[in-house]
Amino acid sequence: MNIALDMMGGDFAPLEAIKGVELFFSQPYQQVNLILIGDEQKINFLLSEYKIPNENIKVVHASQVIEMHEHPTKALKEKQQSSIAIGFHLLATGKADAFISAGNTGAMMVGALFSIKTIEGIQRPTIGAYMPKENGELSLLVDVGLNSDCKPENLNQFSVLGSLFAKHILNIPEPKVALVNLGEEEGKGNLLTQAAYILLKENNQINFIGNAEGRDLLHSKADVYVCDGFTGNVILKFAESIYDIIQNRKIDDEHFNRFNFEIYGGVPILGVNKPVIIGHGISHANAFESMLTIAKKMIDEKLIDKMKNSFKAS
Amino acid sequence: MNIALDMMGGDFAPLEAIKGVELFFSQPYQQVNLILIGDEQKINFLLSEYKIPNENIKVVHASQVIEMHEHPTKALKEKQQSSIAIGFHLLATGKADAFISAGNTGAMMVGALFSIKTIEGIQRPTIGAYMPKENGELSLLVDVGLNSDCKPENLNQFSVLGSLFAKHILNIPEPKVALVNLGEEEGKGNLLTQAAYILLKENNQINFIGNAEGRDLLHSKADVYVCDGFTGNVILKFAESIYDIIQNRKIDDEHFNRFNFEIYGGVPILGVNKPVIIGHGISHANAFESMLTIAKKMIDEKLIDKMKNSFKAS
Repeated sequence: MNIALDMMGGDFAPLEAIKGVELFFSQPYQQVNLILIGDEQKINFLLSEYKIPNENIKVVHASQVIEMHEHPTKALKEKQQSSIAIGFHLLATGKADAFISAGNTGAMMVGALFSIKTIEGIQRPTIGAYMPKENGELSLLVDVGLNSDCKPENLNQFSVLGSLFAKHILNIPEPKVALVNLGEEEGKGNLLTQAAYILLKENNQINFIGNAEGRDLLHSKADVYVCDGFTGNVILKFAESIYDIIQNRKIDDEHFNRFNFEIYGGVPILGVNKPVIIGHGISHANAFESMLTIAKKMIDEKLIDKMKNSFKAS
Repeated sequence: MNIALDMMGGDFAPLEAIKGVELFFSQPYQQVNLILIGDEQKINFLLSEYKIPNENIKVVHASQVIEMHEHPTKALKEKQQSSIAIGFHLLATGKADAFISAGNTGAMMVGALFSIKTIEGIQRPTIGAYMPKENGELSLLVDVGLNSDCKPENLNQFSVLGSLFAKHILNIPEPKVALVNLGEEEGKGNLLTQAAYILLKENNQINFIGNAEGRDLLHSKADVYVCDGFTGNVILKFAESIYDIIQNRKIDDEHFNRFNFEIYGGVPILGVNKPVIIGHGISHANAFESMLTIAKKMIDEKLIDKMKNSFKAS
């Protein structure tokens, strides 16, 4: 198993990525080879500085970096020697089985869509985010911004992708799926959710429990909350801002500390043919370790194959 | 000035409404006559129980009540003697200058749309909610559920209605208007917000400052946040749930206590020809007092005339 990691992505690159690698290898993992992409000299220096054994590590030099605010498509095209471009090249050619970066989110999305391609039968891949439940567990909110305009069938597909992720990666046996809506009763909603409700209700690949309102999103009503990417993006960023306010006000609360979305590492793009994980720009060591762990689990659980089968059957 | 108040609406009716009336009259208000609609016997008993002087109060008997979960259109049609139906009748016939209820929200909306009608030039009325800023001020989020599917021009009109309310009722001289969106830059968004941005930018009746992301909604970026009713409803209910969690976790914080949306009383339906204010089901005395104060201010400030002029000019 070969996992490629962009060492130049994120606000604290490459140091925090190196520390994440150290943490990852401090666990009793087996048979994982890491491909670290970035400034070779810096990476090798840090690897020896942190005394990380190099038998399972290969460093691939990247002479360029796509900065956080560059235009994704343009940057990917013009910076072929960037760590993100090289990562997708390794993934597309089979030299890597998964690719992780906390770099330019747009470039990661564009790269995934164009170099890895969408699983057959899936109209649009999606990207989710974790939501902390008060009982200490996590739910998954999909989509959180990859698809700002959605059709009913898109939401239906997101629900299947989200369920498979919740089941095999979050270890929730029969994940409850709810549709984010402005009322509880069937028939409520905008045109999109009214139509999506009917598809979700008839979808026997998921455990659909009905509508969820904004007030349900932080509770245990469901394990997977499905919405269009516009709504999901606004919710996610609103939730992130709660943590900032909690911090400002010097409130130290176990539950609200879990609104620090950085601790969850990254979120995978669901619906593409290989595991691709996008990290938060402010990722620290534990976030990188968490992304490596999720990538490994996605490969171990053959999640992509399960997704392929799911959409073949339908 | 005659303000009609539904005494039977809300979870704690009519007691909390009576206490709200008492609070309202404990302020040095002048020339306000209240029309209290509901069970005459109960209301008169409570008025004497609370020793509320009755020179500025008229009680209008209503033999029926529209319950919280009744179907709005059906209930309004069948219960002509309900406090809500009578309230709208008084408003439509000019016997009342404003109508307030903490009862069935749907019935209030339907009543407002059908008996009071929309101001000429306005495509769709809207309903807003307050959002607490960390600096102690309030902003207005419109729409929060009256219009689940919106056209760009709807958002443009909401921005004018919201600005007029923020200016004349919230006393913000030149309210900053932001469009709720999934990115800051112009050009970001779904089809609706991309098109609405252009209209808002060219609208010289408002002080448009650009896009606001989910993370900006609790900050001082803008005074009026404009979005479709689906998005606004999810945000509002999400924010309300934060207060519940704060309470559960026994966090007592001045700012988060302001997430108790009940304290703000009610929100007006903006864009109809008379002031109509809808209260929260769990309204207590201070919420009723606050709604009476807002209704009085809407009349004092001639807010409806200002809205009419605004849409005549355009």
